[in-house]
Amino acid sequence: MDRTLTLSFSCPDASGIVAAVSSFIADHRGWITEASQHTEHELSRFFMRVEIRADSLSFAPEEFTGRFRPIAERFGMEWRLSDSARPKRVVILCSKQEHCLYDLLSRQVAQDFRFTVPCVISNHETHRRVVEAHGIPFHHVPVDPADKGAAFRRIETICRETHADLVVLARYMQVLDEQACRTLAGKVINIHHSFLPSFAGAKPYHQAHRRGVKLIGATCHFVTPELDEGPIIEQDVIRVDHSDTPEDMVQLGKDIEKVVLARGLRAAVEDRVLLAGNKTVVLR
Amino acid sequence: MDRTLTLSFSCPDASGIVAAVSSFIADHRGWITEASQHTEHELSRFFMRVEIRADSLSFAPEEFTGRFRPIAERFGMEWRLSDSARPKRVVILCSKQEHCLYDLLSRQVAQDFRFTVPCVISNHETHRRVVEAHGIPFHHVPVDPADKGAAFRRIETICRETHADLVVLARYMQVLDEQACRTLAGKVINIHHSFLPSFAGAKPYHQAHRRGVKLIGATCHFVTPELDEGPIIEQDVIRVDHSDTPEDMVQLGKDIEKVVLARGLRAAVEDRVLLAGNKTVVLR
Amino acid sequence: MDRTLTLSFSCPDASGIVAAVSSFIADHRGWITEASQHTEHELSRFFMRVEIRADSLSFAPEEFTGRFRPIAERFGMEWRLSDSARPKRVVILCSKQEHCLYDLLSRQVAQDFRFTVPCVISNHETHRRVVEAHGIPFHHVPVDPADKGAAFRRIETICRETHADLVVLARYMQVLDEQACRTLAGKVINIHHSFLPSFAGAKPYHQAHRRGVKLIGATCHFVTPELDEGPIIEQDVIRVDHSDTPEDMVQLGKDIEKVVLARGLRAAVEDRVLLAGNKTVVLR
Amino acid sequence: MDRTLTLSFSCPDASGIVAAVSSFIADHRGWITEASQHTEHELSRFFMRVEIRADSLSFAPEEFTGRFRPIAERFGMEWRLSDSARPKRVVILCSKQEHCLYDLLSRQVAQDFRFTVPCVISNHETHRRVVEAHGIPFHHVPVDPADKGAAFRRIETICRETHADLVVLARYMQVLDEQACRTLAGKVINIHHSFLPSFAGAKPYHQAHRRGVKLIGATCHFVTPELDEGPIIEQDVIRVDHSDTPEDMVQLGKDIEKVVLARGLRAAVEDRVLLAGNKTVVLR
Repeated sequence: MDRTLTLSFSCPDASGIVAAVSSFIADHRGWITEASQHTEHELSRFFMRVEIRADSLSFAPEEFTGRFRPIAERFGMEWRLSDSARPKRVVILCSKQEHCLYDLLSRQVAQDFRFTVPCVISNHETHRRVVEAHGIPFHHVPVDPADKGAAFRRIETICRETHADLVVLARYMQVLDEQACRTLAGKVINIHHSFLPSFAGAKPYHQAHRRGVKLIGATCHFVTPELDEGPIIEQDVIRVDHSDTPEDMVQLGKDIEKVVLARGLRAAVEDRVLLAGNKTVVLR
Repeated sequence: MDRTLTLSFSCPDASGIVAAVSSFIADHRGWITEASQHTEHELSRFFMRVEIRADSLSFAPEEFTGRFRPIAERFGMEWRLSDSARPKRVVILCSKQEHCLYDLLSRQVAQDFRFTVPCVISNHETHRRVVEAHGIPFHHVPVDPADKGAAFRRIETICRETHADLVVLARYMQVLDEQACRTLAGKVINIHHSFLPSFAGAKPYHQAHRRGVKLIGATCHFVTPELDEGPIIEQDVIRVDHSDTPEDMVQLGKDIEKVVLARGLRAAVEDRVLLAGNKTVVLR
Repeated sequence: MDRTLTLSFSCPDASGIVAAVSSFIADHRGWITEASQHTEHELSRFFMRVEIRADSLSFAPEEFTGRFRPIAERFGMEWRLSDSARPKRVVILCSKQEHCLYDLLSRQVAQDFRFTVPCVISNHETHRRVVEAHGIPFHHVPVDPADKGAAFRRIETICRETHADLVVLARYMQVLDEQACRTLAGKVINIHHSFLPSFAGAKPYHQAHRRGVKLIGATCHFVTPELDEGPIIEQDVIRVDHSDTPEDMVQLGKDIEKVVLARGLRAAVEDRVLLAGNKTVVLR
Repeated sequence: MDRTLTLSFSCPDASGIVAAVSSFIADHRGWITEASQHTEHELSRFFMRVEIRADSLSFAPEEFTGRFRPIAERFGMEWRLSDSARPKRVVILCSKQEHCLYDLLSRQVAQDFRFTVPCVISNHETHRRVVEAHGIPFHHVPVDPADKGAAFRRIETICRETHADLVVLARYMQVLDEQACRTLAGKVINIHHSFLPSFAGAKPYHQAHRRGVKLIGATCHFVTPELDEGPIIEQDVIRVDHSDTPEDMVQLGKDIEKVVLARGLRAAVEDRVLLAGNKTVVLR
């Protein structure tokens, strides 16, 4: 695969942004392999993502940031440049359930999208063997109900020391405390096993069963201190019917949980997810 | 199409129900063309639906009720017998939006499932011409905000006089009052333009847009006095993204609203929908 | 709704295209409300679509074509400019089946996307009344098996006289002859009732039933002289199972046929569909 | 979980089958937890599946076969009785691709449906470590292009010795020879990476890309000597667009391949799949 640079940004909407960015790239002979954009009219805010072949540019990839900065400043951009030569580092947190973990391990092996897993952290020993079979360090961090903070501080430390770009809660059955949410703000992606905003909180499949819905869902979202209220990245649903018990729903739901989480993670890893208030813009 | 009798019932779960029903039919040489069943373990209640070719029975279709009654009483069944020779009568209520009305008219023309439309009732004149082009009577029943009850009483009267088996709220923009809900209890099917229980009440697409969901939905349910809380018959969703405004969602949502309503109506017309508390059993 | 101009084009891929187009628009103060692009690497061809608020430009909308031409010529563009003030004219051809026709009439009433229907043409009288109830002229053009050409020549004439931009075969049960395909090339959109390339030709649902597939589909495509081989615009599927007869599939399939046709038509009406060999690029 | 017996059968259609089966069960106090049935009218053949709580019967589970035989013989049934106390044994064959293997391992760990994996066989060493981390034997059986038969004979032997009930080709990249198809007839389940009958044979995603389809699919089917022509058990599709290369499709397709394979396997493991000529009846 060719080395690519990915520029993603948002800024106040204005005339001439695309012209400035595309002229900058064209002037340095950059070959754009993908570009997409969006204007959020309510917020008067513009969002863009551009992928450029690194070897097409007339300057070294390392110079991009410095050369682009004047344009970024002119338009007041919040921006980020990612380099495919430095894949994103994704720390996985899990508990006893296996489906999301196995799915992520499978994708890490396949490298269908590029990321590395510096370690897996769990409050149970359950999956040590399969994780270590991949040469990935496994950290058992039990959560003491009397002092949950200690475990979360340890998790924060591990994430810092492994230079985590993203932290995935792969059906991790503990609610991060406010301090962890703040320390890791913008980096933590959760999979909730309902079609939010329906059935937030505990035992969503049991809630769904009680209401008699005909579809159950899963929601991948950024974690914020407000439980299950963070910006939604991706969602999907699966059909159920009257014959499905809550236990059946738990089983059926796994197939969408893991796929929705993986799609959300992929979008984040590929710098397609930009924040717009409490919502996301997910650029293709 | 052959004439069929459809027996549907629910009763307390017990041993020997299927044996009794199937033996009764077999003993009278009935040819079963479809059968399905369900046990709701939480309620210890059994549900069944059987379709029988009328001409296969050793007695006249009109005798079925009398002959079957002893079995029904033995098991304490709530039961219903429908005869394809007497199609269900479906009164349609609509307002200004066209999509559900046109879809239902199209299905009434096609007779993909058998039903007749004795009349269409609307609080607006908008669709008189297209309805009357089908030879279907159109009743304009305006709703006076100062005396809504008068309109609902008029609707009840029309439904009674036309012997309505079912009343479909095809994006009818008025909330039936409690009296209408009670008078027409078990007969009124509504399409709500959200994936309930998310976004009940007014302007669900605007609510969905604010929350930033990635799918929008529609819910077909029985109407009860508690707004948008009745038993759900059918639901579906459609994908949206950050670029869709609330107005886009209104448009996109139409395609699932009309299909979900039609599927729910079909199930009801074919006696596949049985109540289990505030939920439905929809037998295939 | 605001008046918009939509520029859509494809051209050999090259550096600087986006820069040139976006600078042209920015230099004339154009406000871009939507933009999307695609590079077809195999063909080294670039595709773009831009929507601009007409009143934002520093010149009159009528001047756009003349002013933009030098850029179009520089890059060898195949291009088109559409003006929302002149909605696309869509001629509908149908036979006896009602579902696609009713669906399109419903959308024409709603104007969820802007198009007009100058007339409906059918080889049967079946739907005259409902069409005329909308104030739309209905032309009965029977097809004589001994001289089909005569009917198709008549259809070509009507399309020419009504200035049709697009011609929709809404389950029109006649195969256009080669001359009609050529005369109306690039304008005729068909809905085929299978997931092409499976089950091309006659009675696709019966073919599907014989093979025992678990999903059935519908395909919206441009008509070319090779039956069911034209560029695909849109497809979708619906679940079936062993209990569905070919007749059930015919009924179930209607719900995707009409939606897939409408989505394809919408994309074409909004100038989102560009040809890339025998494939389509459908820009969002 | 309670011990259950599952009776599944097909037989020539006749009056009184359900009555006989349900009376037999009721007479021995059997508690039916699930029942479903289907009549294939074209073949005049009846299909049924019944799940019974083993401890509810008035005789020992081991006696069921002997006691039921007279009924089976009376109606000419092809029938099978499964006992949840003896889970199905599923041998997995894979090559280098990981997604289906990981997905099946994850399900084997979860036991969402009951099956054991006596061994994994592969023509590559790639996945030995992860398989063995589960305590499952891994057999490397390389396929010599000059003598493929030797490998297939070895596979047949392993399947026989491990008492395999089912053999899953989890993206196993070798085509079984005719002898293997016959020896393992009715036991081998494959996942093909297209929506059959479209794109049978090699490189289906490349075929799909060339045709410009808007959805890609996966098909789970029984293996017969005719490549990709066996009875279809399950299918599903996923949306693609013009921007997806064949390589993108390969990646996207994985998510449906693994889910479709797992759903097909589950149906087979739960005795829901019955053959009707070259088609399947999949009873819920």
